[in-house]
Amino acid sequence: MNPENGTPHSGEAYLSSEFIRDAWYVAAWDHEVGHSGTLARTLLGEPVVFYRDTQGQVVALADKCPHRAAPLSHGRVEGDHIRCLYHGMQFNPQGACTDIPGQSQIPPSACVKAYRVVERDRFIWIWMGDPALADPARILDFFWHDHPEWRMKPGYIHYQAHYQLVVDNLLDFSHLSFVHPTTLGTVSNAQVRAQIDRLTDDAAGPGLRITRWYINDEMSPNHQRVATFEGLVDRWQIYEWHAPAFLRMDAGSAPTGTGAPEGTRVPEALQFRHTSVQTPETDGTTHYFFCQAHHFMLDRPEITEAIFQDVVKAFGEDRSIIEAQQRNLNLDPHFKPVATAHDSGLNQARFIIKRRLQQEAAMASPATRQKTSP
Amino acid sequence: MNPENGTPHSGEAYLSSEFIRDAWYVAAWDHEVGHSGTLARTLLGEPVVFYRDTQGQVVALADKCPHRAAPLSHGRVEGDHIRCLYHGMQFNPQGACTDIPGQSQIPPSACVKAYRVVERDRFIWIWMGDPALADPARILDFFWHDHPEWRMKPGYIHYQAHYQLVVDNLLDFSHLSFVHPTTLGTVSNAQVRAQIDRLTDDAAGPGLRITRWYINDEMSPNHQRVATFEGLVDRWQIYEWHAPAFLRMDAGSAPTGTGAPEGTRVPEALQFRHTSVQTPETDGTTHYFFCQAHHFMLDRPEITEAIFQDVVKAFGEDRSIIEAQQRNLNLDPHFKPVATAHDSGLNQARFIIKRRLQQEAAMASPATRQKTSP
Amino acid sequence: MNPENGTPHSGEAYLSSEFIRDAWYVAAWDHEVGHSGTLARTLLGEPVVFYRDTQGQVVALADKCPHRAAPLSHGRVEGDHIRCLYHGMQFNPQGACTDIPGQSQIPPSACVKAYRVVERDRFIWIWMGDPALADPARILDFFWHDHPEWRMKPGYIHYQAHYQLVVDNLLDFSHLSFVHPTTLGTVSNAQVRAQIDRLTDDAAGPGLRITRWYINDEMSPNHQRVATFEGLVDRWQIYEWHAPAFLRMDAGSAPTGTGAPEGTRVPEALQFRHTSVQTPETDGTTHYFFCQAHHFMLDRPEITEAIFQDVVKAFGEDRSIIEAQQRNLNLDPHFKPVATAHDSGLNQARFIIKRRLQQEAAMASPATRQKTSP
Repeated sequence: MNPENGTPHSGEAYLSSEFIRDAWYVAAWDHEVGHSGTLARTLLGEPVVFYRDTQGQVVALADKCPHRAAPLSHGRVEGDHIRCLYHGMQFNPQGACTDIPGQSQIPPSACVKAYRVVERDRFIWIWMGDPALADPARILDFFWHDHPEWRMKPGYIHYQAHYQLVVDNLLDFSHLSFVHPTTLGTVSNAQVRAQIDRLTDDAAGPGLRITRWYINDEMSPNHQRVATFEGLVDRWQIYEWHAPAFLRMDAGSAPTGTGAPEGTRVPEALQFRHTSVQTPETDGTTHYFFCQAHHFMLDRPEITEAIFQDVVKAFGEDRSIIEAQQRNLNLDPHFKPVATAHDSGLNQARFIIKRRLQQEAAMASPATRQKTSP
Repeated sequence: MNPENGTPHSGEAYLSSEFIRDAWYVAAWDHEVGHSGTLARTLLGEPVVFYRDTQGQVVALADKCPHRAAPLSHGRVEGDHIRCLYHGMQFNPQGACTDIPGQSQIPPSACVKAYRVVERDRFIWIWMGDPALADPARILDFFWHDHPEWRMKPGYIHYQAHYQLVVDNLLDFSHLSFVHPTTLGTVSNAQVRAQIDRLTDDAAGPGLRITRWYINDEMSPNHQRVATFEGLVDRWQIYEWHAPAFLRMDAGSAPTGTGAPEGTRVPEALQFRHTSVQTPETDGTTHYFFCQAHHFMLDRPEITEAIFQDVVKAFGEDRSIIEAQQRNLNLDPHFKPVATAHDSGLNQARFIIKRRLQQEAAMASPATRQKTSP
Repeated sequence: MNPENGTPHSGEAYLSSEFIRDAWYVAAWDHEVGHSGTLARTLLGEPVVFYRDTQGQVVALADKCPHRAAPLSHGRVEGDHIRCLYHGMQFNPQGACTDIPGQSQIPPSACVKAYRVVERDRFIWIWMGDPALADPARILDFFWHDHPEWRMKPGYIHYQAHYQLVVDNLLDFSHLSFVHPTTLGTVSNAQVRAQIDRLTDDAAGPGLRITRWYINDEMSPNHQRVATFEGLVDRWQIYEWHAPAFLRMDAGSAPTGTGAPEGTRVPEALQFRHTSVQTPETDGTTHYFFCQAHHFMLDRPEITEAIFQDVVKAFGEDRSIIEAQQRNLNLDPHFKPVATAHDSGLNQARFIIKRRLQQEAAMASPATRQKTSP
């Protein structure tokens, strides 16, 4: 792929069936893994079962008993362990078999893959790749998910589309003018050219910073619905994107001329932090985790709900066009896109993903990859 | 394929996944493309969007924005143009991009395929192949669709079957005795041998004329329901078939001995013109356009409706058996048919289709085909 | 495959897409083929139509007219014959064409495959393989289906899973403790090691006898619900399994110490005969025929019904875990199982099936197989 224009080589499919593996992915919101029972979720094509041990720590194991391939998520949590409810094999949080009913010896091969898991910022993070590289310091910060000065309601959508199409969507906000005219967008979204900076020194790997300022402009419909002031604003969308699929955004509106571009945020300014995270389920389906935290009216849950519902509506608009896009690509997998001036962000993102995949392929001697394959 | 018996060569699939491209196809009934909004329809595996310009002329474009493959049919008609409601690219009726929001230069590659379209006889006709060959003089005549001395109600069915199975059905009316005993058929349908003549001098390409006379015979149930007379009749089905999939039929019943076979049609004779047209959607699904125009009781819309409902019922009978046939062929794609005396028409039709496909393949130098591929 | 541990060779799929053909299969319960109309059922990937002739004998023909592949099951039974209701070809019970409407000569190739059928023990048995080998003496005995001293209600389930997964299930009853704790199972199911004997002298081919005794144990929940006594029991499950997929079981509970293990069955003992038979529909779906006959309370149909409902509930539990297992195997077709001590029965069964497939492949000269292929 040529990073300048994002055009795949002749013969290359528009959407890759390979996923970055050596990365922290979001598997779930914390509340999705309850204090009893299990959560079954397919990630990067691998079935995974989640449960909490007696200390409340989340355990993630391959959701496929090594005996007969039955899903452990149909099983029973027993203290820190989980028992397959087909023939009764029991496993500990490290994936080692601890009981085979009717049998005293346990063969060492009777184990399931255990995934490294970290619970942080209300997300359950999982490492799908080489365990030796799983460093929690590489997890991105989403402090506004549980910070006392922010409020949010967690959201989840399931997509019948490749995660890359969602990434494309998020890296070009010119679509806000056309997909979201009554929710997130204004006419100016498509006129303003974003400033795009490469982020190279981040523990999470290379990324992008995308900055959009709309000076002396109208408020977007979703800002208007919660604003305590009227009139024109200085509005901003400043976000960082990291591979495989993380968007963290500082967004807001302040009365125009009150110094927002210079860094002043007056008390009545609307300040948001937005989260959009995609985790591939398969090469045609995606888990999408999102929230829109607000820094004002902290004690009004109806405002939190209204902000959430605005995003839910807008994300339904995205899903409609993106799933239609996927159906078109199913009919024409080798589609060659024509580039526009707004594509710079998504082309750079595709270049970053491509490089990560190449680096993983290069690092993977047959011996090391065998350990980490499902 | 051997035209004498229709038996495919060993190893050849019973149903071809190739379509004739250099042909006028019916894309829609005229009313399906409204004066606002769009119609999305997949034809020969290609998504196409239809809309009317400010003069009411139908425009047909590839339903796939060249920027990100989003369907233009989710977009907005703006005067003569259509705008993609993903990132806002706008196209004119020739498929050229006329606006890229936030960008002054428009690259020449930012265009979509425009299809040649003709609106005639209440059909929207489309040319899917080499544009240089698109001659409207090759469009078949269906004058009874909007002639003052004829009345009809337009019909459409979607089939979960290859279009060839519908063609097979229409070229052997012996099935009327068995599939349609209470609607279109009589016992004699399966006893009468059709006369089949080749049509070679037609602008639409080679075809067949199939003639069936039932002398001094009973009326078919659908004729009985609208006849103003009783007793035996001379009944006829005289139809022309052209590739890929057009049937135009003169059919009717006249009191026996009143000279119908010799060309006299007495006033009380029931005269119909029937249309059955198939357009492949994919290699396993088909669009089916039909109507049954009548030349009597012109001012009685309830008769038009009753005639329409009889055909709807009968075509449901066809669909049931044809979709079951398709499911059997899915289990056995290399099925080898045993020929009967009634197969002459359909074997000749298959031979005509095969020849057209071979001619297109021979004509297509790599350079010329590239222009016309989707 | 190594019969000791059931591990497929590297690269071999866990589930085979080949079926044993030279075997009697159960196609239906007798009542499913009525005295009018037809039954359509796909067996081993072949569509088959069943109907009864004027003597009540079941006829089984390929459900695919040789003319146009339409299903004969959409047709009409006419005396001993069946007529395709597409173009009217008629066939006799031997599959020969006896009428082509509008045509006096009938080509010898106008025939459908006729399957050898035997109705016995309320089952419709069908031979899918080489007709020369179809010996009814090889049909297994299920006398309890219509014996005056036994009562049963016939059951049928459709599985979205390969038949081999059901065979695996039935050859390891340790799963009763985990899948069926409130229906068929007790804790001891997973603790008792089954005695497994090879059966070699059977006309139906090699099989297995599996014997499980639970001495001085609790009754299973389904036995408790119909027992006229309380307290501990000697309980047994003694079953014979034959390829491809037949289980015949003598099961029951007697008050402990009354001599059941030595062969005495006191009058109050609960005696059952169980039938579990699988017939592949396709390589991902299965027909499952079952019943649980009882030898007590013969004149109480509500007991027959209660026993039936207990099995229906339990078999729903099996289906839930087995279809989930199939979905996991779809994601990982080359899954390599880890063996346990309970696997001996199912490994031996897989070995028997594998040998049968190898023998059929070796016997099949191209000439002989051509006759029997669909």
